[in-house]
Amino acid sequence: MAKIAILGFGTVGSGIAEVLDLNQEDIRRRTGQPAELKYILVRREFPGSPYCDRMVQDFSVIENDPEVKVVAECIGGCGAALDLTTRALKAGKHVVTANKALVASHGLELLNLAREHNCNFLFEASVGGGIPVLRPLTFCLCGNRIEEVCGIINGTTNYILTKMIREGLTFDEVLRDAQDRGYAEADPSADVDGVDTCRKLCILSALAFGQHVYPEKIFTQGIRDVSAEDVAGAEALGRKIKLLGRALRRADGKLTLYVSPHLVASNSPLFSVEDVFNAVQIRGNAVGDVMFYGRGAGKLPTASAAVGDIVDCLLHDEARREIEWEEAKPEETGDFSSLPLRWYVRTDRPFNGTESVDGQPGAYVTAPLPFAQLDALRQGGLKMMSAIPLLD
Amino acid sequence: MAKIAILGFGTVGSGIAEVLDLNQEDIRRRTGQPAELKYILVRREFPGSPYCDRMVQDFSVIENDPEVKVVAECIGGCGAALDLTTRALKAGKHVVTANKALVASHGLELLNLAREHNCNFLFEASVGGGIPVLRPLTFCLCGNRIEEVCGIINGTTNYILTKMIREGLTFDEVLRDAQDRGYAEADPSADVDGVDTCRKLCILSALAFGQHVYPEKIFTQGIRDVSAEDVAGAEALGRKIKLLGRALRRADGKLTLYVSPHLVASNSPLFSVEDVFNAVQIRGNAVGDVMFYGRGAGKLPTASAAVGDIVDCLLHDEARREIEWEEAKPEETGDFSSLPLRWYVRTDRPFNGTESVDGQPGAYVTAPLPFAQLDALRQGGLKMMSAIPLLD
Repeated sequence: MAKIAILGFGTVGSGIAEVLDLNQEDIRRRTGQPAELKYILVRREFPGSPYCDRMVQDFSVIENDPEVKVVAECIGGCGAALDLTTRALKAGKHVVTANKALVASHGLELLNLAREHNCNFLFEASVGGGIPVLRPLTFCLCGNRIEEVCGIINGTTNYILTKMIREGLTFDEVLRDAQDRGYAEADPSADVDGVDTCRKLCILSALAFGQHVYPEKIFTQGIRDVSAEDVAGAEALGRKIKLLGRALRRADGKLTLYVSPHLVASNSPLFSVEDVFNAVQIRGNAVGDVMFYGRGAGKLPTASAAVGDIVDCLLHDEARREIEWEEAKPEETGDFSSLPLRWYVRTDRPFNGTESVDGQPGAYVTAPLPFAQLDALRQGGLKMMSAIPLLD
Repeated sequence: MAKIAILGFGTVGSGIAEVLDLNQEDIRRRTGQPAELKYILVRREFPGSPYCDRMVQDFSVIENDPEVKVVAECIGGCGAALDLTTRALKAGKHVVTANKALVASHGLELLNLAREHNCNFLFEASVGGGIPVLRPLTFCLCGNRIEEVCGIINGTTNYILTKMIREGLTFDEVLRDAQDRGYAEADPSADVDGVDTCRKLCILSALAFGQHVYPEKIFTQGIRDVSAEDVAGAEALGRKIKLLGRALRRADGKLTLYVSPHLVASNSPLFSVEDVFNAVQIRGNAVGDVMFYGRGAGKLPTASAAVGDIVDCLLHDEARREIEWEEAKPEETGDFSSLPLRWYVRTDRPFNGTESVDGQPGAYVTAPLPFAQLDALRQGGLKMMSAIPLLD
């Protein structure tokens, strides 16, 4: 009987232990065998924990135990997490993780390592928390040529924007409230500056297009500069501001990724995604638009996705789950700054092809215009208080 | 190299042939081999079709060809489709289908037959067209105890209701328009009376709860009786009328399925699902609510789902995809008529616990009340022009 080890006992690790316990009967119905948790790797003792008898502080116990078939990496970051994931795969164990930083920066090498050792490296929980999105994208939509992936994939920023829109508050006011409620970290930059969205976008895009673009190469604009005037301007256009990660194949076949707030129209299914909810929209040439929606974070939703991966490994201990991608070739990727978009701008004078926004003095929508050209105007002295693209 | 046969060359069959051609490079990237279409079973000749060289009129050619590993059943109904699916599985071939009538009425026996012959019987395309929902439900959410499945799973009725709401038209007016546009059949009863929703609900529920309830045992109410007054009443409550299929596990553990129009509140993600779009909401005890959204019908979306299943069979020719369910036990299922719901009613006098709907004379919302009790009131002489449950 295959056994499981969890590395780390924070939110995700303890959530996985809890879900394995809570739903053991349902899991047994799917796998035909119990999914037994044998070890939890911890750095300190947890006296009184119901799992204390299974806690170990030395990874080599797990590494050298042939009964352990699946390792759930719940350490986070790219230090010990990378080291132990590498060792687990080399020891022939399947690894599942919710660690988007690890997958975004090292997914390609870890997938290659998994293949060499005939193991699975699965990471459904790394994007969209509990929402099934990576597996449907990889398997269910494999009869499609994917044209675009676009998502609200950070709950903290969506919560902040929703509250700014509903209550007419400023970014700083809502951020403080979100920090008080525990929805935002003391250092909120990974969320509000779009870094977290960018990492998840890398993963989505690699699965959708088979090409891994690294986070540091992606144009990333967060929500710090979104003002109450922008919120009002969006409303005057019947739109809402949402932070989106977008990966699209352009007409010339080139792949372009970027992260930015957007003005989303009311007929888009992303328009009604509010609060901490996440949603990923995928456009395939056969299926058209599909969207996956749910809670993008939280202990049990994230654990739900990781346990789905664990069960997949138990069911496919022999057959590898083929996830393959390669490093994106520079000649096949397009620069964000050349992508034509319509922009909502606030400026001191209209320019070529802009249209006024009703009732919002100084607010305009441009004709389709690449960021490079907009930036040149700004460099050339045009005063621009805001510039946010429209999702069309 | 594994080869494919399509049975039937109507909308779905020709769509699958088209998608296999159109996206052969993407499919090859996923499977490492081309997915080659060897036969199309037809009843008449299609002179001039680019597929003429592959058309056969005798199923035994396909049945006896060991190169054919996957058969896509696209005949429809439960006559020849059941016969040929049975023969294909007995011949050791995987079968994929979009035929919800076949799966709802014979899924249990066909899954058992597939297991006996070490084959897969897959039917992602039978619910929600191209939207990945069955596979995520079965595999990604397998770490959850599913509490409820609830969906808008018939595009024709959602189109009719959307148009009634937006344009203030009557059911009969919109039905004629939908028939003119080809969105509704000349005989619309399978759609508007909820039969199609009921079949899809059986399939969703069997996957979610592992128990197969047959369509004829399910309380099914369609949208024929929804009036302009009901639409206005829903609007006065900030709600919209949607035809839903619901399967839920009640507090006593009993499984209850039913199909009915509902008044859906604006904070539900189902509220903004408009026109021919479909959406399925699933509640798991770990993941909370997730929703899958997209086009629930159409040639290429349906083909997209079927091709996803075909690729799954090619990738797992040896390893069976475990989908298992059993016949629902009467002692584990609950009767719809005993399920307490709040109802929107139009009646000539208020009764115990009803609240008036603002600005809608004669319209009320009841306290939670089982259908049986409501029906007893009606039988007892209470005049009731409408009774539609609220989705709470």
